[in-house]
Amino acid sequence: MDTKSRILKAGAKIVLQKGFYDTGLTEILKAADVPKGSFYFYFKNKEDFGLQLIDTFADYLKNGADTFYEDQSLSPLAKIRRIFKWQAESFLKSDFKGGCPIGNLSLEMGDRNALFRKKLNTVFADMKKRLAAHLEQAQHQGEIADSLNIAEVADFILSSWQGALMQMKITKSITAHQVFDRMIFERFLKRQDPVRT
Amino acid sequence: MDTKSRILKAGAKIVLQKGFYDTGLTEILKAADVPKGSFYFYFKNKEDFGLQLIDTFADYLKNGADTFYEDQSLSPLAKIRRIFKWQAESFLKSDFKGGCPIGNLSLEMGDRNALFRKKLNTVFADMKKRLAAHLEQAQHQGEIADSLNIAEVADFILSSWQGALMQMKITKSITAHQVFDRMIFERFLKRQDPVRT
Repeated sequence: MDTKSRILKAGAKIVLQKGFYDTGLTEILKAADVPKGSFYFYFKNKEDFGLQLIDTFADYLKNGADTFYEDQSLSPLAKIRRIFKWQAESFLKSDFKGGCPIGNLSLEMGDRNALFRKKLNTVFADMKKRLAAHLEQAQHQGEIADSLNIAEVADFILSSWQGALMQMKITKSITAHQVFDRMIFERFLKRQDPVRT
Repeated sequence: MDTKSRILKAGAKIVLQKGFYDTGLTEILKAADVPKGSFYFYFKNKEDFGLQLIDTFADYLKNGADTFYEDQSLSPLAKIRRIFKWQAESFLKSDFKGGCPIGNLSLEMGDRNALFRKKLNTVFADMKKRLAAHLEQAQHQGEIADSLNIAEVADFILSSWQGALMQMKITKSITAHQVFDRMIFERFLKRQDPVRT
């Protein structure tokens, strides 16, 4: 791994646990085992590092999601459902420490830094776009109701998921994923079948 | 206002903007205009202050919600819908700074402090219980489908709302409330009418 990636990877781990604001430069340098000069060769300052860190987190989530989006054995809706399950299982494995880096940074830095806010918005927008594209396929294939407004549904699912992650973090339990999974996929998105009278 | 309430009120404002971890004792004392000895008369330490602060936040949210829960001119479902609208409007008024103190502290302190986690869980559990009681009334009055599992629905609505607040904070826009409102009240909770064929 090149030095820049090593710094970003080491920083990502610490920031995910402690937040960005409380993570000191010295800590990052120590974890990545690089001298200060090396840090400033790759990053203008801590803010620049933070902005590039968001890209690192976003790439990680994107690559993870792609594993499922590209799995042709799954239906469009099954792909989406599996991505949330994957995230919940990763979170469980880490004993519900950390959580979604994009969500955490949104609450932590949303008020503090306009550049962070802009960047985090771009990441959410990209996630939504990709989710919406697969929801649209699900709609074309008749997996979900035609009456659903895909753009709003994608917004709603992603923000609900951020809330579910928050609940998992504080309860140290997978329950919020199970509730999210049932409510979204077995009720909210479900085609409304004709009621037999 | 007594001294203790003044310290809590001044602290609440700062913590809501900056988070608990980054709020210094000196800052709180200055904002409340009290000497340090006075702080230690009412609070064992900063942690104790933080735990009592959660109660202050919880009371504020509870009192706000009660205004609607106790409004006999509204149906059970209308009461619930109005509470989220009230919160969204308060958030808009503050230019989407701060947000839900309980949600913010959950993400900030969830990993750091087990006592905070326990206390925040109690607050969420109480909110859910009150929401569930009114959802049950809505179900009895035929406003929402009989097939809904009230406990899970209350969990889902509250965690979705936390996610919506996060989106509002980062987009500085009320849109996530509008989406939440339509998705939850006009689709998710809606009685499924027989489809005419």
